[in-house]
Amino acid sequence: MSRKILILPGDHIGPEIMTEAVKVLDLVNERFKLDLSLDHALLGGAAIDACGVPLPEETLTKARASDAILLGAVGGPEWDKLERHLRPERGLLGLRSELQLFGNLRPALLYPQLAEASSLKAELVAGLDILIVRELTGGIYFGEPRGIRTLDNGERQGYNTYVYSESEIRRIGHLAFSLARQRDKRVCSVDKSNVLEVTVLWREVMEEVARDYPDVELTHMYVDNAAMQLVRAPKQFDVLVTGNMFGDILSDAAAMLTGSIGMLPSASLDQQGRGMYEPCHGSAPDIAGKGIANPLATILSVAMMLRYTLNEVPAAEAIEQAVSAVLDQGLRTADIHSGDYQRVSTSEMGEAVIRAL
Amino acid sequence: MSRKILILPGDHIGPEIMTEAVKVLDLVNERFKLDLSLDHALLGGAAIDACGVPLPEETLTKARASDAILLGAVGGPEWDKLERHLRPERGLLGLRSELQLFGNLRPALLYPQLAEASSLKAELVAGLDILIVRELTGGIYFGEPRGIRTLDNGERQGYNTYVYSESEIRRIGHLAFSLARQRDKRVCSVDKSNVLEVTVLWREVMEEVARDYPDVELTHMYVDNAAMQLVRAPKQFDVLVTGNMFGDILSDAAAMLTGSIGMLPSASLDQQGRGMYEPCHGSAPDIAGKGIANPLATILSVAMMLRYTLNEVPAAEAIEQAVSAVLDQGLRTADIHSGDYQRVSTSEMGEAVIRAL
Ligand SMILES: CC(C)[C@H](C(=O)O)[C@@H](O)C(=O)O
Ligand SMILES: CC(C)[C@H](C(=O)O)[C@@H](O)C(=O)O
Repeated sequence: MSRKILILPGDHIGPEIMTEAVKVLDLVNERFKLDLSLDHALLGGAAIDACGVPLPEETLTKARASDAILLGAVGGPEWDKLERHLRPERGLLGLRSELQLFGNLRPALLYPQLAEASSLKAELVAGLDILIVRELTGGIYFGEPRGIRTLDNGERQGYNTYVYSESEIRRIGHLAFSLARQRDKRVCSVDKSNVLEVTVLWREVMEEVARDYPDVELTHMYVDNAAMQLVRAPKQFDVLVTGNMFGDILSDAAAMLTGSIGMLPSASLDQQGRGMYEPCHGSAPDIAGKGIANPLATILSVAMMLRYTLNEVPAAEAIEQAVSAVLDQGLRTADIHSGDYQRVSTSEMGEAVIRAL
Repeated sequence: MSRKILILPGDHIGPEIMTEAVKVLDLVNERFKLDLSLDHALLGGAAIDACGVPLPEETLTKARASDAILLGAVGGPEWDKLERHLRPERGLLGLRSELQLFGNLRPALLYPQLAEASSLKAELVAGLDILIVRELTGGIYFGEPRGIRTLDNGERQGYNTYVYSESEIRRIGHLAFSLARQRDKRVCSVDKSNVLEVTVLWREVMEEVARDYPDVELTHMYVDNAAMQLVRAPKQFDVLVTGNMFGDILSDAAAMLTGSIGMLPSASLDQQGRGMYEPCHGSAPDIAGKGIANPLATILSVAMMLRYTLNEVPAAEAIEQAVSAVLDQGLRTADIHSGDYQRVSTSEMGEAVIRAL
């Protein structure tokens, strides 16, 4: 029975980079006889324009029926004035929550070929390979009660709730520890347990989970210190595990350390290992339509999908090697271009990966 | 009538750096005829050891009666096993809250003499001068309800409340805008208004405050993007204003960008401009007792106190110039030492500042 992949191109550069990623996916599908069948749907701004809502029922139904989802990027200024619940990012948050994609994997990996792109001194980031594991369906992103109310004295007050239960912490903990086992066997759990009770529980449950992984080292770090250490000496980390909000902040900082956010894929997994895969970067309205976006993060998201959800490791490795090969050839899209490397367009980069495959 | 300064040396390196800072304060007090009277009290671990609580009644009474407070640093592993409400940081949080020190000023300034200390490439940080204005008595740090409860299904759940009212946002907004007026006239307000309702209100109130400062530019940035931009191109910022939790994370990241956190002072102000002044760094138990801690952040905290609370700008400038002079002389404590600069102890650095004065 063929496995179903849902393609959500999204907005702005989303469709441009997706075109290249789908070419790559089609090729490995054939070459490695993966028997994948592809379907398409709308999400975010594209869905708002077509159906009035960022996550149409049809998209959700198709998503539920899929083994994996490949997403481009959503959002843009043209939809920013809409009411909150109709904005593009609601589509993304809705999908994460409806599919219970609780485990967000965000590798921050510096390709040796791109070492000079980092804003940090080369020796501090050369060989950087961190995996941030972010809880994605709980915490303050989804906590209730939430809203804006008017107090008795007439002034307004905004409020949100940062909440985690033991089982939510436990499942992200197990994911982080099992991933660390395949790497350098070190987990650093990030919290603010000197101030926030919810993260006191977080820390306790991480300790408990750690007992099942005696071969993996667990350390704890306060979030303010983690932000400092990422800037000071990022290579000290292997796997970082943290909640939704801290993970949002730290994973973006870590991605930027590499200087090439256009290269970084991400995965969002459910309990069964099904997942949504997308580049770390956004929909970049400023460069949309120019054919200059970097498709490699989306192409590498295909590789992550093959590795984590579809269990097709040789196909994943083939894509990763092809990406490395085009970098070795000196091809660079605008975002990672420097010196006298050859500057290429989105489609030229896609074609180069296809050739390297 | 003489103005009262309360000295809280705190723990570990706290008393060591405070000794030097007090020498400097005594000298400018005499030289500039400031008529300051100094008193001492206990906070944090030192208070726990002496009185069993991190913020004794006597300390609070003296603090309330003071015009300004100079704090070393609190905390250490020996008090980490105590019950939550008895730990050293409770003393600090209690003081902030009791005195309503809502406005936390954290400059991230790179001394040209220390440019090579940064982990970022020199051209990205040379001349860096950011002021982070962090709300310090509200937000998720103090929000209720909070705690750990047991759900009907028997599992535990931790929860905290992220809450801001209009008036809390307004007063920190006014502080940020009036400080920006004395600088490059640009405020960037950091929120997560695409996800958190409390920061939707934050953004609205910032817009409203901005109308009173037509000469100051207001922009908004999501916190994840702000963390990225601090790493990518920190010099784009002038004043950053944000809530307690985001401010904790971003100000530490920004401080670390300078590579010399041992140099950075901070201020925590109330509505009347009274304040508590302290270095950005912690109590550094690992180097305590060795006489190698850098006293300059605390000495520069004295300068900030003279500037912001006591309105003694010439005395503040004299201290800042003296610090710059000792850096020019090539004196460096261990934390900022490199190459063939002259390595000095805590007290040698203090003496050098005194001489330069
Ligand atoms: C678009 C936004 C809601 C989202 C988030 O905050 O999770 C994004 O920043 C991300 O990290 O995927
Ligand atoms: C010690 C801790 C409670 C404190 C905070 O989180 O505010 C510290 O990190 C700071 O930034 O002053």
